[in-house]
Amino acid sequence: MSDVQTLTGPEVEQHASRDSCWIIVHGKVYDVTDFLDEHPGGSKIILKYAGKDATEAYEPIHPPDAITTNLPTEKHLGVIDITTVAKVIKEVSEDEKRRLALMDARPPLDNIINMHDFETVARTVLPEKAWAYYSSASDDEITIRENRLAYQRVWFRPRILRDVSSVDWSSTILGQKSSLPVYISATALGKLGHPDGELCLTKAAGKHGVIQMIATLASCSFDDIIDAAAPGQTFFLQLYVNRDREITRKYVQHAEKRGVKGLFITVDAPQLGRREKDMRMKFVGDDAGAKVQEGQSDVKKDQGVARAISSFIDPSLSWKDIPWFRSITKMPIILKGIATAEDAILAYESGVQGIVLSNHGGRQLDTARSGLEVLLEVVVALRQRGYFPNPNFEIYVDGGVRRASDVLKAIALGAKAVGVGRPFLYAFCSYGQEGVEKAIQIFRDEFEMNMRLLGARTLNELEPEMVDATALTQHVVMVPQDNLYQNTYQPLTVAQFKQSKL
Amino acid sequence: MSDVQTLTGPEVEQHASRDSCWIIVHGKVYDVTDFLDEHPGGSKIILKYAGKDATEAYEPIHPPDAITTNLPTEKHLGVIDITTVAKVIKEVSEDEKRRLALMDARPPLDNIINMHDFETVARTVLPEKAWAYYSSASDDEITIRENRLAYQRVWFRPRILRDVSSVDWSSTILGQKSSLPVYISATALGKLGHPDGELCLTKAAGKHGVIQMIATLASCSFDDIIDAAAPGQTFFLQLYVNRDREITRKYVQHAEKRGVKGLFITVDAPQLGRREKDMRMKFVGDDAGAKVQEGQSDVKKDQGVARAISSFIDPSLSWKDIPWFRSITKMPIILKGIATAEDAILAYESGVQGIVLSNHGGRQLDTARSGLEVLLEVVVALRQRGYFPNPNFEIYVDGGVRRASDVLKAIALGAKAVGVGRPFLYAFCSYGQEGVEKAIQIFRDEFEMNMRLLGARTLNELEPEMVDATALTQHVVMVPQDNLYQNTYQPLTVAQFKQSKL
Amino acid sequence: MSDVQTLTGPEVEQHASRDSCWIIVHGKVYDVTDFLDEHPGGSKIILKYAGKDATEAYEPIHPPDAITTNLPTEKHLGVIDITTVAKVIKEVSEDEKRRLALMDARPPLDNIINMHDFETVARTVLPEKAWAYYSSASDDEITIRENRLAYQRVWFRPRILRDVSSVDWSSTILGQKSSLPVYISATALGKLGHPDGELCLTKAAGKHGVIQMIATLASCSFDDIIDAAAPGQTFFLQLYVNRDREITRKYVQHAEKRGVKGLFITVDAPQLGRREKDMRMKFVGDDAGAKVQEGQSDVKKDQGVARAISSFIDPSLSWKDIPWFRSITKMPIILKGIATAEDAILAYESGVQGIVLSNHGGRQLDTARSGLEVLLEVVVALRQRGYFPNPNFEIYVDGGVRRASDVLKAIALGAKAVGVGRPFLYAFCSYGQEGVEKAIQIFRDEFEMNMRLLGARTLNELEPEMVDATALTQHVVMVPQDNLYQNTYQPLTVAQFKQSKL
Amino acid sequence: MSDVQTLTGPEVEQHASRDSCWIIVHGKVYDVTDFLDEHPGGSKIILKYAGKDATEAYEPIHPPDAITTNLPTEKHLGVIDITTVAKVIKEVSEDEKRRLALMDARPPLDNIINMHDFETVARTVLPEKAWAYYSSASDDEITIRENRLAYQRVWFRPRILRDVSSVDWSSTILGQKSSLPVYISATALGKLGHPDGELCLTKAAGKHGVIQMIATLASCSFDDIIDAAAPGQTFFLQLYVNRDREITRKYVQHAEKRGVKGLFITVDAPQLGRREKDMRMKFVGDDAGAKVQEGQSDVKKDQGVARAISSFIDPSLSWKDIPWFRSITKMPIILKGIATAEDAILAYESGVQGIVLSNHGGRQLDTARSGLEVLLEVVVALRQRGYFPNPNFEIYVDGGVRRASDVLKAIALGAKAVGVGRPFLYAFCSYGQEGVEKAIQIFRDEFEMNMRLLGARTLNELEPEMVDATALTQHVVMVPQDNLYQNTYQPLTVAQFKQSKL
Repeated sequence: MSDVQTLTGPEVEQHASRDSCWIIVHGKVYDVTDFLDEHPGGSKIILKYAGKDATEAYEPIHPPDAITTNLPTEKHLGVIDITTVAKVIKEVSEDEKRRLALMDARPPLDNIINMHDFETVARTVLPEKAWAYYSSASDDEITIRENRLAYQRVWFRPRILRDVSSVDWSSTILGQKSSLPVYISATALGKLGHPDGELCLTKAAGKHGVIQMIATLASCSFDDIIDAAAPGQTFFLQLYVNRDREITRKYVQHAEKRGVKGLFITVDAPQLGRREKDMRMKFVGDDAGAKVQEGQSDVKKDQGVARAISSFIDPSLSWKDIPWFRSITKMPIILKGIATAEDAILAYESGVQGIVLSNHGGRQLDTARSGLEVLLEVVVALRQRGYFPNPNFEIYVDGGVRRASDVLKAIALGAKAVGVGRPFLYAFCSYGQEGVEKAIQIFRDEFEMNMRLLGARTLNELEPEMVDATALTQHVVMVPQDNLYQNTYQPLTVAQFKQSKL
Repeated sequence: MSDVQTLTGPEVEQHASRDSCWIIVHGKVYDVTDFLDEHPGGSKIILKYAGKDATEAYEPIHPPDAITTNLPTEKHLGVIDITTVAKVIKEVSEDEKRRLALMDARPPLDNIINMHDFETVARTVLPEKAWAYYSSASDDEITIRENRLAYQRVWFRPRILRDVSSVDWSSTILGQKSSLPVYISATALGKLGHPDGELCLTKAAGKHGVIQMIATLASCSFDDIIDAAAPGQTFFLQLYVNRDREITRKYVQHAEKRGVKGLFITVDAPQLGRREKDMRMKFVGDDAGAKVQEGQSDVKKDQGVARAISSFIDPSLSWKDIPWFRSITKMPIILKGIATAEDAILAYESGVQGIVLSNHGGRQLDTARSGLEVLLEVVVALRQRGYFPNPNFEIYVDGGVRRASDVLKAIALGAKAVGVGRPFLYAFCSYGQEGVEKAIQIFRDEFEMNMRLLGARTLNELEPEMVDATALTQHVVMVPQDNLYQNTYQPLTVAQFKQSKL
Repeated sequence: MSDVQTLTGPEVEQHASRDSCWIIVHGKVYDVTDFLDEHPGGSKIILKYAGKDATEAYEPIHPPDAITTNLPTEKHLGVIDITTVAKVIKEVSEDEKRRLALMDARPPLDNIINMHDFETVARTVLPEKAWAYYSSASDDEITIRENRLAYQRVWFRPRILRDVSSVDWSSTILGQKSSLPVYISATALGKLGHPDGELCLTKAAGKHGVIQMIATLASCSFDDIIDAAAPGQTFFLQLYVNRDREITRKYVQHAEKRGVKGLFITVDAPQLGRREKDMRMKFVGDDAGAKVQEGQSDVKKDQGVARAISSFIDPSLSWKDIPWFRSITKMPIILKGIATAEDAILAYESGVQGIVLSNHGGRQLDTARSGLEVLLEVVVALRQRGYFPNPNFEIYVDGGVRRASDVLKAIALGAKAVGVGRPFLYAFCSYGQEGVEKAIQIFRDEFEMNMRLLGARTLNELEPEMVDATALTQHVVMVPQDNLYQNTYQPLTVAQFKQSKL
Repeated sequence: MSDVQTLTGPEVEQHASRDSCWIIVHGKVYDVTDFLDEHPGGSKIILKYAGKDATEAYEPIHPPDAITTNLPTEKHLGVIDITTVAKVIKEVSEDEKRRLALMDARPPLDNIINMHDFETVARTVLPEKAWAYYSSASDDEITIRENRLAYQRVWFRPRILRDVSSVDWSSTILGQKSSLPVYISATALGKLGHPDGELCLTKAAGKHGVIQMIATLASCSFDDIIDAAAPGQTFFLQLYVNRDREITRKYVQHAEKRGVKGLFITVDAPQLGRREKDMRMKFVGDDAGAKVQEGQSDVKKDQGVARAISSFIDPSLSWKDIPWFRSITKMPIILKGIATAEDAILAYESGVQGIVLSNHGGRQLDTARSGLEVLLEVVVALRQRGYFPNPNFEIYVDGGVRRASDVLKAIALGAKAVGVGRPFLYAFCSYGQEGVEKAIQIFRDEFEMNMRLLGARTLNELEPEMVDATALTQHVVMVPQDNLYQNTYQPLTVAQFKQSKL
C-alpha cells in the first residue's frame, strides 16, 4: 500500500464490463470484477457504474468502510487523478423534479407542531427508496403499528391541586445527564434522506443536551460524528456484532477511547427481517418484466436494502459471548431487543447494566409484542426476584413514541428513559438539524404541559398509580364483519341544510 | 383618572407603528407600545389595528376587563371622540359571504331533533377560528371522544310494567331547583360564535329553570349576565384562580354578593392544554411561508387562542389553598376536574361540598379517562369510607353528554347531575337563544321518553341495577389490521337489480 | 246511526277549509273540523284532503277503525254517493316513476338467497316514508344493530360423526304446531309497503305451517286477516293496551272467539320511541323552510308516523293489571318486552305462560341490550329458582335474526322459539306473498344445512355446549382512533400488475 | 361393453333436444335424456351441448368418473369417431379476452413475495366461476375470515441470544419426511383454474419434498396424480365417504395399493355448505330475468357448483363406521374436521392416528371457530386424560395460514403440522407449477427468518411459552357505532404543504 498508484479516468473507463469491472469510490479505484456476483445488492447496480465514479450512489447506502472491508487489498488499485475523470452531466429525472418542488412547498417549520407532521413531510419529500427503507417493517407491519397503539391502551390517572409552578423533566441515563428522559435511538443510512446524514442529529443533540446513540450502520462514519460533537456531548453506541469478532473488538474499543458512554448490543437481529415495502422497491427499480417464464429467481437479489447491507451480522451470537464483551470494554453494556421477562432475568444475571425492551421498530419478528407491553411483565418478574428497582440496572423502552405523554407512561411503569428513532430521523430528513431541534422543542413543551396536568413535578413523582394499564396486554382483533348486514343498514344522518339557498 | 383626556381619531392615527402604538377599545385609547411583545397572541395582530379602533377584533376573544387589567394605568390615555374616528368600510370577504349564505340556509329549527344537529350546523356556520377554538381538544383528541364513547359502554336494564303515566325529571343541585338534572357548564368566549354571547344561555336558562355556570372567560361580563337574569334565576360560577389572589377574592365575593349559588373551582388547568386545531388556525391566518429558513420560532405565538387568554391562571394552586377559599365565601365550593378516587377522597376530606368528575371537555390531558368512568371508582371509594351517599356532598360529571339517556346513566351510577357545555354552546352559535331553548326542549322530550321506558318515575328510582356498566372501564384498541388480507378478501354482496331495466 | 244520510261530492266540497272541514274515508263522510288540531299527524295533512276523498292517504297509516274511534258519533255525517265525487286524476310524481322502474328491475325472486337481499330490495323499492317508518329505530339506532351483532358474539361448537341423514326442525309454540322454530312477529302498517298488507304474511304462513302474530296496528283489520286463514292456521295476537280497558277487553275476547291461540301483551312501549329517521321524514315532506325565525315549534307535529298512531296506548299499565287480563281470556298470556332477569322472575310468578325477551326491534329504549344477551341471565335466574325448564312457561327471543343459524343459537341457549319481524315484512314489501314463501324456504334450507353441520337431528339435541357464548355479554367500544398516526401510516400493498400490458 | 359401438358426429347431432339428448365426453357417447332433470347443475347447461362434444365444459367441474358412475351402463352408447365431429370454432368472449390480457400482465413471479400476492393475481386472472367456487365460504363468510384473524390474536414471545446460525424446519407427518411442517391440503376442481389442475401441486411437491393430500373431488384422476409422482414422493388421501360404501372401499384400497400414506376422512361435511358467492354465480350466468312473476323456484338449481358435485356424500356417516374403515385399510386414519375437545377425545378413543382441527376452510358451518382456537381446548383436554403428547396421535390444524409465522404459532401450541390449501391453489392458478414452487420457497425463507428471530433452532424448540395466546378465544364484536357523533367529529389533520408552490 506504500507504493500507491495513480490512475486516470480513461484508464478506468477501459474496465467497464462484466469481464473487467473497475469503479471509483471516494477518489480510489477498485477492481470489483470478482465481487460482482457476491454483491448483496446484485451485480446490475454495480455494472451501471463500471468504469465510472460510483461515489454518489455508493455513499448513502453503504457504511463508509464497506468497500475496503469487503474487497481484498490486491483489488484496491490506487488513487484516481480526479481531473482526468469525465464529468457526468446528471439529468434530473421528472420524479426528482417533482420531489424538489415538494421540498420547496414544505410546510414552514413554524407549522410543525407534532411528530406526525415530520413523518408526513418526510413521506412526501423523501426519495421513494429512502422512504421504503426507513418506514418499512417486517411481514404485515403489525408490530410496528402495535408499538404505537400500545400507548393508547394506557390511560392517565392525573392528580390535581399540587403546586406545579415548576416542573422538571431532566434525567440521567447510565449516569449521564440528559435534558429529556429520551435518547435518540440508532437508525441506519441517514444520508439516504439528507446529505448531512446523522450529523443533523449530532448537532441538534449537542445543542440541546440530548444523548445520541450512534448506529453501526450510520451513513456518516463514527469518527465524523464524534468529531462534530459539542464539548461534553454524550454518545452511546449501537452494535451489530460482526462474524469477525476482531472487527467488533476494534470498533468497540475505538468507541470507548473516543468517549462513548454506553454500548447497546443489538440482540434481536441475528438476521435482518423481511421488509416488504423495502423488497417491493427493488422490483420497481429493476426491469421487472422478464422473469415469469424462467426458473427460480435468485433470492439474494430480492431482499431490499436491509439485507443487502447486513450480511456481516453474526447469527451465532449468544449468552456465552457476554463475558467477552465485558472483557474488551469498561463501558456499561446494554442488551437491546429483550422481549420477555425470562430474557430480562437472564440479562440481569449476566451482569449487564441495562436492557432495552424493543422489537427493533417492528422491523424484525412481526407480531412480537411492543416494548411497553413487555415492560409490565419484566418489572413484575425483576421485582419478584429483588432485581428491581436497582440503580445499577436500567430499563429502557423504544418503539412507537410520538408524544411526551407516551414517555411519561413508560416511565410511570418503570422505564428509566425511552428511545426515539424514526421521529428524529424524519425530522432531519424534512428540515435538517433545525427539524431535530424543533422535535426536541416539541417534546419539551409537551413534557412541561403534561407533567403539570399529571401533577408530577419531577420524573420521580411519576408512579404506577398515575396510569391505568389494564388494557395494555390485550390484543383485540374484531371478528369479521357481517358485510351483508353492514351494507344494508342505512346510517342516520343529521339535519340537512336547505339546498335551495346555497 | 378623574382628569380624563379626550382624544381624536387623527391624534390616535399618529401612533400607528411599532415605535408608538395606540389603539381604541370600547371608546377608550390605550398606549400598547410596550405591551406589544408581551401580548400572548403576538404583536402582529395588534399592529394591524395600530392607530385604529380595535374593539371589534378585541371583543370576542378577550374577557371584558383584559386590557385594563393588563395595562398599567398610565397607559390608559383617555376617551376617544368617536365622531372623529374615520369609519372603516369593512369589506366582506368571500369566506364571510359564503358563511352568511350558509347561515341563511340553516335547517329550520323545527328540523333540529338532537344535539348532533346543533353541532353540525355550528361547524358549518361558525367562523373557522371560532369552530377551531370551541371544538378543539388536546393532543390527539382522544379524551374528548372517549368522553362520548364511554356512554356507549353503559347499557340499560329497563324495568317494565310500572305505572309510568307521569314521570318527573326535575332535581335540585346544591339545594337549588333545577328543571333538569343538567346544568349548563362553563364555556369560554361565547361572542366568537354569536354576537350576544353567553346571554343567549342566560335568557334561555332563565325561561326554562335551568342553572347556568358562568365562565371566568366568558365574553360577556359577569355583571351583564347577572343583570339579564330572570327573577330567582340560579347561577354558579366557574373560577380560574388568578396568580394575584386579590383579584380572585374580589371576583368571588362580588359573585356571592350578586347571588351566585355555587363556586366551581377549576382544578385541572394549571396551564391550558395544547389544542392542535386551535394552534393550526394561527398558522393558516398568518403569512406562514417565511420561517423555514430562519431560526427557532417564537413559541408564544404558536399556541392558539386558548393559551393566549389564560396566562393569568395560577399553576401553584394546591390543596393548601382550600381553607382560604372557605374563608372568603359562604358559597358552596365544588372542585371541578377531579379524575381519580384518591383525589375525590381528598376533596371530601377537605370539606368542599362537591366535585365535578371532568377532564375539561378533553381539552387538558389527553388520554385522561372520562368522568363517567371515574365515577365508578369514586363511588366505590367514597362508599367504602362511609362518605357516600351524603346529602352534603354531591358528585357531578361532565363531558360527552348528547342525550338524556346519557344523563340517566350517570345518575344511575351515582351522579347528582350532569354538566353540559358544548351542545348548548353550539345551540346558541347556530340559533341564538331559541337554539338553547330547543336544546332544553329536546332534553325534556328525551327525559320523558327514557324514564318511561326505563321504568323510573323519578330520578330517585334510578338505581345502579338499571345499567350494565361492566364494559365501562375497558379501553379497547384493535391491534393493527392485516391490510394485505383485508384488501385481498372480496366482500359478499347482495342480489343485484337488473341493470337493463334501469 | 240507523238514519244514515247520503251525501254528494259537491256537498262535501263546500267544506274544504279550516273553518269547516269534511273528508271522505271508505265511502263515509266525516266532519273533522274540531279534530284538526288534535290530529297526531298535524292538521296540514288533513287540510290537503278537505272536501275530498282521503281514503288512499288514510288507509296505509291508520288502523282501520281509527277514524270511527277518534271521532264522536255526531261527526259521522253519512255515506257518500261515490258517483258524484269528482275523479282525481292523480299525477305520478317523478319519484314515484323512478320507484316503479325500480320495482320492475327487482332481482328475480330466484336470485334472492338470504334475508339481507329482501331488505336491500325493500330499501330500494319502498316509498321513502314507508322505509323510514319500518327501518327506523330509536335515538342512535344502537340497539337495533346490537340485536344483530349479538348473534355474531355466539359461536358454534359443532359435533361430528352423528348420523344426520334426517333432521327435523319443526317445533311447537304454546302447544301449537309450527313447521319452524320461528313465528312471524307483529309489525305495523303493512299497507305502507304493499297493497295487500299483512295478508301477504297470512297466506304464506298458512301455506307453510308458520304461526303469524297479528299486530294491533296492522293495516289490515283483524277480521280480514282471520278470514284469509287456511283451515287450522294458527295466530297469536300482539296487544297494545288501550287507556280505555273496555276497548281492550272487547278486542281480546273477539280474538279469542275467532281462535287466536296466544295473547302477547307488549310491555315495553308505554310510549312509542323517538325514531329519528321517521321524524326526519316529516320534515322533508313539509314545506320546511318557514320556521327558523318563529317561535318554538309545535312538538306534536314532529314525531313521525310512530307517535302519530299510538296515542291510545296506556302508560299506566302495570303488574297489577295482569290478573285482569287473566280474568278476561283463557288464551295463554305472554309478556312481550322483558329485558331483565328480575322482570322474567316477576313474570313467571305472575302466572303468565311465557315471555318474549325483546327490545321492540330497537325501536324503544336505545342502548337496551339484545334479547339474546338477556336470555343468558334469564335462564340462569329462572333455573336457580327451579322455574326453568318448565313445559308451561316458554321463553322467546326476537330482534336481529337473519339466518337459521341465529335461531339455533337462541334455542341452544334456552329459547323455545324466535320471533322474526322485519325480514318477513321486507319480503312481502318486495315480492308480496311469494316473497314471504321464499323467506320461509330459505329458513328451511338453512335449518336443514345447519342442523346437519351442528350434529343436532332435532331441536331437542341443541344444547348449551353447542355454542360458545362467552363473548355475548361484552359491549366492546373501541377507544378513539389516533387519526394523525393512522393517516400517516402507509398501508402495505400487494404485487402490481404490469400497466404497460393493459 | 365388449361389443362397443362406434358412432359418428352426424348421428349424435340427431339427438340434440330435450326429447333425445346425446352428448360426447372424452370420446364416448352418452344418452343423458333421462338424466336431464336429475343433473345437479340443472338441465339447461347439458342441453347447451346436446348432440355435441361436451368434454371441455365437463372436465374441470366433474370428477373424471362422474358420468360413468351416474349413468346406467345402457346409456353408454359407444365411442365416437372423432374425425366425424364438426369442429366448433370457439369464439373468444370479450370477458375471456380481457382475462387473457390480464394473464399477460401478471406481475413477474420475481415480484411475488407473499401468499396474498398469489391470491390477488388469482382473483384477477381466474374465470369468475372458478374464483367464486374457490374463494367462497358459507353464509356470511365469517368463519373463513376468522381462520385468518385467529392467528393475529396470537403474539410471539421471542427469545434472544441463542446461537441460531443454523435452523431446521423439516419435520415428519405420520412418520413421513416433510421438508416443511406444512402439507398441501385437499382442494377440489383444480382444472377450473389451470389446465394442468392438481398436477401442478404434485410436481412442485415432489421436487421440494412436500406432502400432497389428494382430494376426492380433484379434477385430475387419482391415478394421473400418482403417476406423475417423483420417486418416493408422499401422498395422503382426503376422503368423502360415499353413500355406497363399496365405492369407498375400492377407492381407499386402491389408494393404499398405490402407496398413499394416510387416509384423511372428512367428517365435517355430511352436506356441502351454502356458499353464496358460488350460488350467485349461477344466477348471473343464467337468463335470470324470467322468474319473478312465476312460482317457487326449483331449489336444486340454485346451489352453485359445490352442491352440484357432492350429492354422493353420505350424511349418515357416524362413529360406528370407524371400525369398518379400520378393517379395510392399514393406512393411518385421520379425522378431518374436528371442532371440539369432546370430539377430539372421542376420536382418540376410537383409535384413529390423528385429527385435523378444521372447519373446512370456512365452507361448512359459518361462525364455527377456527382450528387454531379449537387447538387450545383440545390440547388441554387430551393432556388432562394423558392422551397428549403421544407419538402415535398427531394433531393438525388447517385454515387461514398465510405466513410461516402462523405455522410456528400452531406448532408452539401443540400442532404437529399445518394444512395449507387455498394459497397453493392460488399459486398454481396464477403461475402453474412454478407458482407452487415459489410459494414453497417463500415459506422456506420465512421459516428460516422467523425461527432465527424466535430463538428456536428446531421445531422441537417451539414451546407454548413462545406465544401469548390469551386473546385467542376472544370473539370481539364492536357495538354499533354512533354515526351521528362519528360523522360530526372533525378529524385532526397534519401540517399542510403550501399549495401556492405546487
